[in-house]
Amino acid sequence: MARVGLIGFGYWGPNLARAFSEAKGVSLAGISDLSPTRRERAQTRHPSALVTEDHGCLIDHPEIDAILIATPVSTHFPLAMAALKAGKHVLVSKPITASTAEATQLIDEARRRGLILMVDHTFLFSGAVRRIRDLVAQGELGDIQYYDSVRVNLGLFQSDVNVIWDLAVHDLAILDFVLPARPRAVSATGMSHVPGGPENIAYITLFFDGRVIAHVHVNWLAPVKVRRTLLGGSRRMVVYDDLEPSEKVKIYDCGVTAQNVGPESIYQILYDYRMGDMWAPQLDRSEPLAVEAAHFAECIATGRAPISDGESGRRLVRILAAATESMRGSGVRVELEPDDPADRS
Amino acid sequence: MARVGLIGFGYWGPNLARAFSEAKGVSLAGISDLSPTRRERAQTRHPSALVTEDHGCLIDHPEIDAILIATPVSTHFPLAMAALKAGKHVLVSKPITASTAEATQLIDEARRRGLILMVDHTFLFSGAVRRIRDLVAQGELGDIQYYDSVRVNLGLFQSDVNVIWDLAVHDLAILDFVLPARPRAVSATGMSHVPGGPENIAYITLFFDGRVIAHVHVNWLAPVKVRRTLLGGSRRMVVYDDLEPSEKVKIYDCGVTAQNVGPESIYQILYDYRMGDMWAPQLDRSEPLAVEAAHFAECIATGRAPISDGESGRRLVRILAAATESMRGSGVRVELEPDDPADRS
Amino acid sequence: MARVGLIGFGYWGPNLARAFSEAKGVSLAGISDLSPTRRERAQTRHPSALVTEDHGCLIDHPEIDAILIATPVSTHFPLAMAALKAGKHVLVSKPITASTAEATQLIDEARRRGLILMVDHTFLFSGAVRRIRDLVAQGELGDIQYYDSVRVNLGLFQSDVNVIWDLAVHDLAILDFVLPARPRAVSATGMSHVPGGPENIAYITLFFDGRVIAHVHVNWLAPVKVRRTLLGGSRRMVVYDDLEPSEKVKIYDCGVTAQNVGPESIYQILYDYRMGDMWAPQLDRSEPLAVEAAHFAECIATGRAPISDGESGRRLVRILAAATESMRGSGVRVELEPDDPADRS
Amino acid sequence: MARVGLIGFGYWGPNLARAFSEAKGVSLAGISDLSPTRRERAQTRHPSALVTEDHGCLIDHPEIDAILIATPVSTHFPLAMAALKAGKHVLVSKPITASTAEATQLIDEARRRGLILMVDHTFLFSGAVRRIRDLVAQGELGDIQYYDSVRVNLGLFQSDVNVIWDLAVHDLAILDFVLPARPRAVSATGMSHVPGGPENIAYITLFFDGRVIAHVHVNWLAPVKVRRTLLGGSRRMVVYDDLEPSEKVKIYDCGVTAQNVGPESIYQILYDYRMGDMWAPQLDRSEPLAVEAAHFAECIATGRAPISDGESGRRLVRILAAATESMRGSGVRVELEPDDPADRS
Repeated sequence: MARVGLIGFGYWGPNLARAFSEAKGVSLAGISDLSPTRRERAQTRHPSALVTEDHGCLIDHPEIDAILIATPVSTHFPLAMAALKAGKHVLVSKPITASTAEATQLIDEARRRGLILMVDHTFLFSGAVRRIRDLVAQGELGDIQYYDSVRVNLGLFQSDVNVIWDLAVHDLAILDFVLPARPRAVSATGMSHVPGGPENIAYITLFFDGRVIAHVHVNWLAPVKVRRTLLGGSRRMVVYDDLEPSEKVKIYDCGVTAQNVGPESIYQILYDYRMGDMWAPQLDRSEPLAVEAAHFAECIATGRAPISDGESGRRLVRILAAATESMRGSGVRVELEPDDPADRS
Repeated sequence: MARVGLIGFGYWGPNLARAFSEAKGVSLAGISDLSPTRRERAQTRHPSALVTEDHGCLIDHPEIDAILIATPVSTHFPLAMAALKAGKHVLVSKPITASTAEATQLIDEARRRGLILMVDHTFLFSGAVRRIRDLVAQGELGDIQYYDSVRVNLGLFQSDVNVIWDLAVHDLAILDFVLPARPRAVSATGMSHVPGGPENIAYITLFFDGRVIAHVHVNWLAPVKVRRTLLGGSRRMVVYDDLEPSEKVKIYDCGVTAQNVGPESIYQILYDYRMGDMWAPQLDRSEPLAVEAAHFAECIATGRAPISDGESGRRLVRILAAATESMRGSGVRVELEPDDPADRS
Repeated sequence: MARVGLIGFGYWGPNLARAFSEAKGVSLAGISDLSPTRRERAQTRHPSALVTEDHGCLIDHPEIDAILIATPVSTHFPLAMAALKAGKHVLVSKPITASTAEATQLIDEARRRGLILMVDHTFLFSGAVRRIRDLVAQGELGDIQYYDSVRVNLGLFQSDVNVIWDLAVHDLAILDFVLPARPRAVSATGMSHVPGGPENIAYITLFFDGRVIAHVHVNWLAPVKVRRTLLGGSRRMVVYDDLEPSEKVKIYDCGVTAQNVGPESIYQILYDYRMGDMWAPQLDRSEPLAVEAAHFAECIATGRAPISDGESGRRLVRILAAATESMRGSGVRVELEPDDPADRS
Repeated sequence: MARVGLIGFGYWGPNLARAFSEAKGVSLAGISDLSPTRRERAQTRHPSALVTEDHGCLIDHPEIDAILIATPVSTHFPLAMAALKAGKHVLVSKPITASTAEATQLIDEARRRGLILMVDHTFLFSGAVRRIRDLVAQGELGDIQYYDSVRVNLGLFQSDVNVIWDLAVHDLAILDFVLPARPRAVSATGMSHVPGGPENIAYITLFFDGRVIAHVHVNWLAPVKVRRTLLGGSRRMVVYDDLEPSEKVKIYDCGVTAQNVGPESIYQILYDYRMGDMWAPQLDRSEPLAVEAAHFAECIATGRAPISDGESGRRLVRILAAATESMRGSGVRVELEPDDPADRS
């Protein structure tokens, strides 16, 4: 039984609190938040938890084994580092840190101490994403051609990071988990519509070796919520719509055949793109956060590396930083240097 | 009554033939196509039309006033030029030509002869797009922030042009018609998944003066058909879904307000993005091609410039060429020089 | 090559005209209509057809082999009888006649003369309905439990028949075609909201032997168009949505298991109703009217009975009449006497 | 501050527990359930509540002011009566009782003691239903023509009551709340597909004075979940889809005009049914159960009658019983005697 302490009870923290208080193998021992209102809410919902203003109180608590961090990105590094140094396992909200250098330090610290360092990439624990990963891994889709995701929101709007760091990170995590290959370069564009604010709309293209391309559209200022991903393969294609109450994952048989339809000099060769049957498999409907909490508990118990470990967190930060750089250069291609082991020595 | 001759009875030609044979103010006098099968089909459907293998026969026909061109892009210029030189008005399929230089020659030739030169940008004649243009023109949306369009297909696949020239041209035409400003630069990415074929998936960002951004996603290899545009304004936002049987245009009231939710040093300023009522106006349901045919007839009768004239056609070709150039440079920003009047002198 | 003459160029006639002028094995020789405006429209679209005010001219025409009837229901019987007596094959719009007695006379006349008598139940020729019939026939759904259809409209409104005769007839035809059993009784309710007009909203329940039930909801005054059918079976269930651009037919695996969840005296036995995978087969996308025209031509050529022959047309009229009777009795059960062969002797 | 005790922590009880533990003006003091597993779950989620096997312990508890009953229907009467006799206010799950006679006794007991008796018709507290009631009350829809609801489920399946008592009760409650008139008679049909089980599919028609008709389709064995209501009026029509994440209520302008389209003797008068603009108002998104809990607390504090009081509960039971009777008579019309005050004397 791992006893966890949660730092941050703002937008996302309450969800972690609920999930970890109900999951098997873990218990929620404490919650800290700077806001009195939030502390009151936390205490009402979790009457048996220690609720405090001082996160240090949780980090140093002898009966707490692990720290969950649900605070703004800029605070992830100092809080996670303090927790690791106090010998606690850490689960940190996405993205892991504000820079790859910070991520490297956390990874090294956790490794040195034999502690679990995990990033809360919740989607990786959903039945839909796990099914898509299996489809890719088993070759069901044929050669992967493209990944195209739209993740637009009518929701909250952050001032500390741009929309890439807030929303695109979900797609980058899914891509990192689902595809066998790593992106080589990135081109991004975007815009801020709130004076002085970070970019609230962005478009990111990832280039891979070969003919694979990925694109992510994120937007905080959309009139409708969309969570739709197309994953194209040479044999089958997937439409993953996370807002569908059921049938979130649809798999289409497909095929392209060239069709010669006239004197070539003037008329076109048409490619006839034919869709076949569609199939929507039943998915595991377990709540992703519950699966994630159990996974964290199991990693603590066994020492096994989490599927969303510090390394994957750092890869994503590298892409987030490169995409932001490209966006500020109006789409200029930015290379993603290979994941250099020396980087963390 | 304008008598028209149609060159090309392949994929799109039959639609023009039907529309022009039923519209008021025009009559379909002749059809040419190189394929015997297509000629037979044309004659069955249009028993009273002159059907011929030789397009020259239509261009030179003394009783034909105007030529409709529905052939591959590379043939637009020679056919349109021949028709203009024979004194015929011309309606040419999109895009007008394969280069701005060709477009300039057609524009000059038409002007010199006092002939109508119009491009078949069918969407401009739909009730939905006309309504959106009115909303923008009347300031109903406030300041325009972004235009985001997805136009993906499970349809035919062309070998003579890439997907930008085939599909994105529709969005660029709508943008040119709807927005008061002209784009200043473009960044595009894309990929070909058919060996030796043109790019079949592409993403285009257009930069404007100020904080306006536009993005177009086009794809010939999608498992589902999507035709959805988001148009964001500071006061209202529009969702235009061309596949909706009714309610193609939805207008959302919206507003963003900053909300200070805690000690700023650690916690975020949240922007609360609130949607209000939604409104779907009844649209003119006239068939766009019928409206377009009538517009062409009226322009011929009155000498008035078409709303999709040669100039707009040339502006679009400039963007198409720049987007293709950027795409081959992995997203590098390509400037769109201002529409230089000297260019066509 | 069967030469057909069409009587009636109002709402539906133009569709028949187009289909029969393009189908193989038939040609459209003539069209009659009482309205000069419609005749003009007919002649414009079908320049080579004989267009006349006088339907007798088609019925008696020596070079016409078959008559298509697309006129109000009350005229079906006299027109069809005249055509049969003139030795013509007949395809009549749905429903076949206004009474079973009239239908019986037509059936007898056609039989006596060896002529084809077919009813235009267009849906039976769609890929979706044919696929559903195959699923039922092959036992894929298990035991049929229910058929539930909603067919509501924002369309035209008729004054000569009620909404049951206009819209429910489609569902009754599909039921007759798809299910192996025949309904035994009917209960219907409905209402007229236009003073002096026929009922414009109706609900029909059909009772079968065993545990099968069918229900049809039809409405001329709905704000949205719905065409959705649920077909429940013990092993699989079908959702057939005719307005879906693709994936019109979705097949769901399902299963119900009893689950004992507590002391029975107070707590419930819950049945856990579990859905499994969903599957949407690719359907034949041929235009139903084209398939129907070819089927009519083939029946004429071979003497084979149409799948929507006079007998099925009469069965449907019997149900329509019984449903109207029940509706006027506020839902009272009306028995459907078995299809008595003596009825037509 | 009203202190409440909850009897029953099965399917619905946990939702009441959560809502009442978070609502203002009430606190959750105790929970009883016969199942040890459920009691354990209750205690984990509500650590400060008294959790007991014995509901009498709550009913007799001096510090408990009100009892919430979330048990099977057959137990509603004895539990509610015991609670009233112990001087507690009562909120009982729908439907109030298994018979009108039982409901009458509860109403009388509550009146005699000056206690609040409320039924948990949760939908009446949703922003959507409250908005629809306002639209009707303000005459925005014109004359009401029909109410048509589909409520079908892939959910749990009960053995103690049929689907009318489980699902249709929601629509009957909405009808009772929204429409000014009361139904006069009912016709219903249905079927059981589980041997020995109650009817799992049912269709109910309600007749009102004048031209108003209502219909409810409920089904426990559907492959998809549907929660859609059409409400037709002479001026406007409403589509209420409770599964829409936003835009649950859409309001359509509409109008029907007679259109004379030809010689009447043979051709039809067509009614042209025209839809105008559609409008989806922003709705109050408060959680219905939270609004309901606050309403119950306020009624206790002020003595005001709840909007879902015992009387409305009894009216609904009368309809449920009549519908079940009609269903067993294959749709025979069953009159609903007027709500007789003598009935409860």
